[in-house]
Amino acid sequence: MSSIKSNKSWGGRFATAPSSLLKEYTDSQHYDRELYAEDIEASKAHALMLGKTGIITGQEAELIINGLDKIWNEIEADNFVWKEDLEDVHMNIEARLVELIGETGKKLHTARSRNDQVAVDFHLYVSRKCDDWKNACIRLCEILYKLAKNNQSVILPGLTHMQPAQPVSLAQYLLAFANMFKRDAERIEDAQKRIRVSPLGACALAGTTYNLNPFMTAEILDFKDIYSNSMDAVSDRDFVLEAQFIASVIMMHLSRLCEEMIIFANPAFSFIGLPDAYSTGSSIMPQKKNPDVMELMRGKTGRVYGNLVSILTIMKGLPLTYNRDLQEDKESFFDSSDTVLSSLKIMSSMLPEITFNKDAMYDACSRGYLNATELADYLVNKGFPFRESHHITGQIVAWAEKEGLKLEDLSLEQFQALEKSIEKDVFQVLDYNNCIKRRESAGGTGPLSVKKQLEDFATWLNKYNIPL
Amino acid sequence: MSSIKSNKSWGGRFATAPSSLLKEYTDSQHYDRELYAEDIEASKAHALMLGKTGIITGQEAELIINGLDKIWNEIEADNFVWKEDLEDVHMNIEARLVELIGETGKKLHTARSRNDQVAVDFHLYVSRKCDDWKNACIRLCEILYKLAKNNQSVILPGLTHMQPAQPVSLAQYLLAFANMFKRDAERIEDAQKRIRVSPLGACALAGTTYNLNPFMTAEILDFKDIYSNSMDAVSDRDFVLEAQFIASVIMMHLSRLCEEMIIFANPAFSFIGLPDAYSTGSSIMPQKKNPDVMELMRGKTGRVYGNLVSILTIMKGLPLTYNRDLQEDKESFFDSSDTVLSSLKIMSSMLPEITFNKDAMYDACSRGYLNATELADYLVNKGFPFRESHHITGQIVAWAEKEGLKLEDLSLEQFQALEKSIEKDVFQVLDYNNCIKRRESAGGTGPLSVKKQLEDFATWLNKYNIPL
Amino acid sequence: MSSIKSNKSWGGRFATAPSSLLKEYTDSQHYDRELYAEDIEASKAHALMLGKTGIITGQEAELIINGLDKIWNEIEADNFVWKEDLEDVHMNIEARLVELIGETGKKLHTARSRNDQVAVDFHLYVSRKCDDWKNACIRLCEILYKLAKNNQSVILPGLTHMQPAQPVSLAQYLLAFANMFKRDAERIEDAQKRIRVSPLGACALAGTTYNLNPFMTAEILDFKDIYSNSMDAVSDRDFVLEAQFIASVIMMHLSRLCEEMIIFANPAFSFIGLPDAYSTGSSIMPQKKNPDVMELMRGKTGRVYGNLVSILTIMKGLPLTYNRDLQEDKESFFDSSDTVLSSLKIMSSMLPEITFNKDAMYDACSRGYLNATELADYLVNKGFPFRESHHITGQIVAWAEKEGLKLEDLSLEQFQALEKSIEKDVFQVLDYNNCIKRRESAGGTGPLSVKKQLEDFATWLNKYNIPL
Amino acid sequence: MSSIKSNKSWGGRFATAPSSLLKEYTDSQHYDRELYAEDIEASKAHALMLGKTGIITGQEAELIINGLDKIWNEIEADNFVWKEDLEDVHMNIEARLVELIGETGKKLHTARSRNDQVAVDFHLYVSRKCDDWKNACIRLCEILYKLAKNNQSVILPGLTHMQPAQPVSLAQYLLAFANMFKRDAERIEDAQKRIRVSPLGACALAGTTYNLNPFMTAEILDFKDIYSNSMDAVSDRDFVLEAQFIASVIMMHLSRLCEEMIIFANPAFSFIGLPDAYSTGSSIMPQKKNPDVMELMRGKTGRVYGNLVSILTIMKGLPLTYNRDLQEDKESFFDSSDTVLSSLKIMSSMLPEITFNKDAMYDACSRGYLNATELADYLVNKGFPFRESHHITGQIVAWAEKEGLKLEDLSLEQFQALEKSIEKDVFQVLDYNNCIKRRESAGGTGPLSVKKQLEDFATWLNKYNIPL
Repeated sequence: MSSIKSNKSWGGRFATAPSSLLKEYTDSQHYDRELYAEDIEASKAHALMLGKTGIITGQEAELIINGLDKIWNEIEADNFVWKEDLEDVHMNIEARLVELIGETGKKLHTARSRNDQVAVDFHLYVSRKCDDWKNACIRLCEILYKLAKNNQSVILPGLTHMQPAQPVSLAQYLLAFANMFKRDAERIEDAQKRIRVSPLGACALAGTTYNLNPFMTAEILDFKDIYSNSMDAVSDRDFVLEAQFIASVIMMHLSRLCEEMIIFANPAFSFIGLPDAYSTGSSIMPQKKNPDVMELMRGKTGRVYGNLVSILTIMKGLPLTYNRDLQEDKESFFDSSDTVLSSLKIMSSMLPEITFNKDAMYDACSRGYLNATELADYLVNKGFPFRESHHITGQIVAWAEKEGLKLEDLSLEQFQALEKSIEKDVFQVLDYNNCIKRRESAGGTGPLSVKKQLEDFATWLNKYNIPL
Repeated sequence: MSSIKSNKSWGGRFATAPSSLLKEYTDSQHYDRELYAEDIEASKAHALMLGKTGIITGQEAELIINGLDKIWNEIEADNFVWKEDLEDVHMNIEARLVELIGETGKKLHTARSRNDQVAVDFHLYVSRKCDDWKNACIRLCEILYKLAKNNQSVILPGLTHMQPAQPVSLAQYLLAFANMFKRDAERIEDAQKRIRVSPLGACALAGTTYNLNPFMTAEILDFKDIYSNSMDAVSDRDFVLEAQFIASVIMMHLSRLCEEMIIFANPAFSFIGLPDAYSTGSSIMPQKKNPDVMELMRGKTGRVYGNLVSILTIMKGLPLTYNRDLQEDKESFFDSSDTVLSSLKIMSSMLPEITFNKDAMYDACSRGYLNATELADYLVNKGFPFRESHHITGQIVAWAEKEGLKLEDLSLEQFQALEKSIEKDVFQVLDYNNCIKRRESAGGTGPLSVKKQLEDFATWLNKYNIPL
Repeated sequence: MSSIKSNKSWGGRFATAPSSLLKEYTDSQHYDRELYAEDIEASKAHALMLGKTGIITGQEAELIINGLDKIWNEIEADNFVWKEDLEDVHMNIEARLVELIGETGKKLHTARSRNDQVAVDFHLYVSRKCDDWKNACIRLCEILYKLAKNNQSVILPGLTHMQPAQPVSLAQYLLAFANMFKRDAERIEDAQKRIRVSPLGACALAGTTYNLNPFMTAEILDFKDIYSNSMDAVSDRDFVLEAQFIASVIMMHLSRLCEEMIIFANPAFSFIGLPDAYSTGSSIMPQKKNPDVMELMRGKTGRVYGNLVSILTIMKGLPLTYNRDLQEDKESFFDSSDTVLSSLKIMSSMLPEITFNKDAMYDACSRGYLNATELADYLVNKGFPFRESHHITGQIVAWAEKEGLKLEDLSLEQFQALEKSIEKDVFQVLDYNNCIKRRESAGGTGPLSVKKQLEDFATWLNKYNIPL
Repeated sequence: MSSIKSNKSWGGRFATAPSSLLKEYTDSQHYDRELYAEDIEASKAHALMLGKTGIITGQEAELIINGLDKIWNEIEADNFVWKEDLEDVHMNIEARLVELIGETGKKLHTARSRNDQVAVDFHLYVSRKCDDWKNACIRLCEILYKLAKNNQSVILPGLTHMQPAQPVSLAQYLLAFANMFKRDAERIEDAQKRIRVSPLGACALAGTTYNLNPFMTAEILDFKDIYSNSMDAVSDRDFVLEAQFIASVIMMHLSRLCEEMIIFANPAFSFIGLPDAYSTGSSIMPQKKNPDVMELMRGKTGRVYGNLVSILTIMKGLPLTYNRDLQEDKESFFDSSDTVLSSLKIMSSMLPEITFNKDAMYDACSRGYLNATELADYLVNKGFPFRESHHITGQIVAWAEKEGLKLEDLSLEQFQALEKSIEKDVFQVLDYNNCIKRRESAGGTGPLSVKKQLEDFATWLNKYNIPL
């Protein structure tokens, strides 16, 4: 609605030309070109509606739509001349349209103001990016699913407090992350209800005197609804906040995966082998292989969190309706969107290249006496109260530790010397595969439970036509 | 799963007693008592399930459930003795249960660990608070709806860039805010899908060896689903993040309303009169009446934003599964929840007490020449190209301003002296009611459009059995 | 220390070439070119030190320094060919140096690793930008000082709670803001103690086997000190946090000024007239003049806050020493720096163009009965207890309000009819200039106090050689 | 300046009593009692000044001061009756003063308003807390210093990218953290310049008509300066922001230390043994020992970051001068202050109880071939170009790895079979103590450098009278 033009269409109220500092400070063209496709698409929908409702003629609508298509082709082919003195992407496209088709081009702006135009473009853009994120989340889910499927029998020590707790299947571990990204995808689907809502028809803030049909425009753009209230339509940025929040949660999930991968790649753990193609070395120290991608991704969480805080701050205490503060909603979204997409994609490419070192994981279980709980349970079954069995187990673990032995390495004689009720069947109990097999509760790490989880996950993936 | 007990149930590994600093630093009892009702309810559901699946006997289940009911009554009646050396709410209730019903009380912890217990309690708590927020949002929507309904014919200057732009109905203005809080309510409904998911059965992290039925517990608690994966179940805090985000958006919406009310209460505007009951004065300056509630509410936005940043920071890079960092998820949520609820409630109480000064609003329209656009449109209808009509209008406005006249105060003679094509019908056009009547596009400020908005809003409110 | 090179200088440990995704994801060249001048300057200092300590020969040092100067000229003249496969600015400059001067170029990297090199470049860069901010703050202080000096006798209503409270001098008002930016300048001076500290000599993390002299390099670069500990040197980013915090406070101060200017430009207030050169209009509504610059600046506060949160998040829980997460420290700083500088500059240019409407301000005082406190004080001097005088004043104000009169417009007869002890000297008391003159406490709004403030401020400005 | 009183001292403008919701929502008494000592101290200083300047008599001043002392004693002895209907700590103390000494008590409020009173109290409070933090930082520095001093010859693998890089002394490692907390202490010292500035005399916003001496009050309170401008004085909260920022940096530093301790306590590393007194176990799994304190401390970083964001948000776009939003500055500061202090203290108590496992650290060096760089340097000294020596070393490491040998375990024959120029002196070079001894550059890990660092650190600690 407000615009800075060299030709002074604002009329006689302004005696002085805009300061060059003003132009530079408020210019958005260098980044909002990113919206050209959405601007053209929304304009085409608007022109079509104007034609169908008779606000302009069908011929005029066609002329405009053809002109816009031509502009789209020019931009795609990098033949479009962006003019810096036309402050934003919208003015550039409009001016070119008039160049191409003459005065009719000006009719595109009928029953529309820059406020609702900018808003609809951005709704469309955010919606598409969110769909891209969703697809990238689902792709990562697929990768994690396949890895899980292929590693059902691999055992690693499940941690709580970063301390070995109970053995789990590697599949169980990977599915924990898969479920995070599945939730992200579902969160996006919910948010789309509030993103794909059309503000067109709100004009500057109060609606328009033209008898337009905003439902038609919404339908052409495949939007779910229109805004009920014109003042809300041009001032609402909830949809950006919601997208930025979802981006933050995705990055948080990735940061958790990265954190563990980085730690597990340290030689002390050696749970994973880093893929050469996704690691860096040192020109000085030959022994180095660094998980740069994961570190950088963990760091980029800060970037996306920052973008969320940015838009929250902007919106705090902002009066109705459009205020120029809102121009700051875009760059941070572009940044979050690129970060989320590239992070999800590189994670999906990198994960299958990671080597999981079964032996190192298994050793860490043994070394951590992760079957001690099972021994205590075994003694309970032999008739000891839990507290006593826990105490005896503690003594056996202490003795084994002193001898440098794992529990499963003790001979039956050694066991019986420590507690005579222990029999040959103890070795079954101490077997790590058996530890895992005992936990078949729904969602647990037992092989049947994991199989069920995999089947359910496959069903969900199938909804998105992922061939498994 | 981990606990600090004076009786040292951790066994022989620990030679030294916990430091008193440790107790003080890690103690959560002073705030997590807030969860007692949810802890008892979830425990009752767990006991019922244990009884029905035969893991404990039906009699044992009944004994436990009755004991828990008794404890609930004790707490409600403020007869419960909280013991500081039992570090949290869960241990206090468990210990009291054993006191009340003896050893059977210990069976409540069968097939459950503190990790999934804490998680289910918090899911239940967050879910309830979110429902409270939703109801408070709907209540505020109702208040705004009623105010709008009663103020359809009141006119105020709609602002963009904090500058007068176009006249709008006060109803249109109020409905813009109503739509924000409606979106908040809808956002909560979506989030509940991810909040009302039961982690019970995940135990420490890997599931349990008992053949429990987590779907039954979920159903008793009226949860929509259970977690698919035990490791995800105990480490997920997405549901807290989502609630904190929603709280932030609600506060942001409130801050926008407060900001405008604060400005409009300044004598320069005088659009609103502050209610005595919700304002403060000065013992020194007799002329003062301060919008303290709105200022404080605007400030509390920072508090809730901070709580969102807090939980985002905590979750960044956190390894699986339970880590003690997660203890920090609660206090900030309690704080946001109280803030959101009390803010929504006081806004709902205060708004109907605010006086809207029709005359001041109308004057601001006139003073701002908000009907200049209509005059320009009128001249276009007389055959002038828009640019020329815009120019002539500019001259007329300038002349009127110099004379200290509003446009509608000019006589026909004065108009014709400035532009002879102007006729008597110009006064119809300049009438502010007519300005508004011309904007009947869907969502616009026209009276029919506003009526339609009110009807649609009433339909939505009716879903929640709000009698209007 | 780690690097991605096509020529595989990492040796035989890597069987696979880096993925193109890795290159793209970890590439920093597109933004870290910004550091070229600091990289060259720090390298020159390092080479000079290497020469002086005999680690390389004086001739070699000279050759390197000349080569670096040449590269600097190439970049300045836009003749430098940036190679994308050399991942960052440092590798590009190093490679070009070897091209220009041959194998000796490689000696520049003696006793230095990329970790301390990147760190020193960034210290230098942040330090300079902070100095730029400081100068821009001082410049804005000067502008505010001059405006204050020229507006000592202009009266506006001082607000608390956005409600008229007591009349103040416009100079007093402007100096309040000047003091904020003065504090910002002082905060930068303190931070420089921690920014201008050299990490050179820390090498990768453990120091170097060469007998270098890091104090010499620090001195050449005009740094105040070197890091005491090599591991701290390469992992510390406190200096970036501190700069980002200062940037946030500056933007916060600007946002407060913008907020008031935006509100005061609304016709209801009309305290200020917006300069044409820094405002925008509307092609539709001739009455519009929008404070876009101030709105945008207020919005950009969110951007800078976000950048602070970003770096705080990145540093949380980051293990020693260098981790690739740290690469994310730069872009957000560049962004904050540009935002702070351009905002301060445009504010300094715009402020002198703003018109302060004395009459509107004075009217707002009168309309707000801002001399009521003075009347109450007057009655106290006549012997009434304060509570009674406050009550009588309240009645007089109420009567005047009803009659549409300002206090100073009442005749002596009217006063005496309301309270017979009032005499002719009351008009002296009610005079707004006199209200202000009575507040001569240090820092108060009285003319002598303001004069003293201006003198002190001038003394401070003089320290920076600002001719006043 | 504004107040909610049951006795309606605001006068006749208010027809309706304050809503109970208003009282509840705006009440600050439940948390601002925390300020009682500062409120009393500042009041005493104000009374003393009033007496000395003759604004009240010396006798009145004495009466007031004695009354305030009595109130302080009552509060300390828990004998003070807090009244809920007196909304804040200031009103409670004032009312009690009048009870104790009669009408003279009311004179305390001469030449002071609540705005400057609240501000001076909070300046004093923040300043003291910051000093407490500083002392706690210095105490932690002392602990780290002593640990470093006692562990100069212990070797651990220095990490970059969480991968073994070069061996360092444990002292070097600990001093890296000591330097962080030293910087924090220094940052506090700088901030005090802006915290210890007195706003007294600013009154509501415009200064006072009394001829008071604010410099005298400042001096009594040991403040460094007074505010130059009364409007700035009552609206400035920079000092709170600066303190909250410093708190965030301290917590960030602690979180980095915690992160490493948590990882190093995992059995895969076993670098540290957790002290029983600061760890928790599991009643189920006997092998567990959890670093709860460190995890919780890492989590509390989020809490303090959140508090910083809170106050930043509150201040954004806030108009001059006092607004009720500012009431929200306190609780978050109290929370950060408690968190910072208790975290620093427990870290200081816990660190000396941690066991550092020399053998595990040394093994990790060997296992990681951390002397490979030294071998490459050795071959360079034998005349090989670095690239070739790097290549040969790579082959030797690969062979040793295959044979399961550490480099230092190879026999001279084995070395010579791989590269015949290697001689007996290679074993000197491979010795890890020698690796470290070679890095004697300033700040490096060499023993002399570490000794120098320790001496310098001791000198700094001595400034604070820490006996070492």
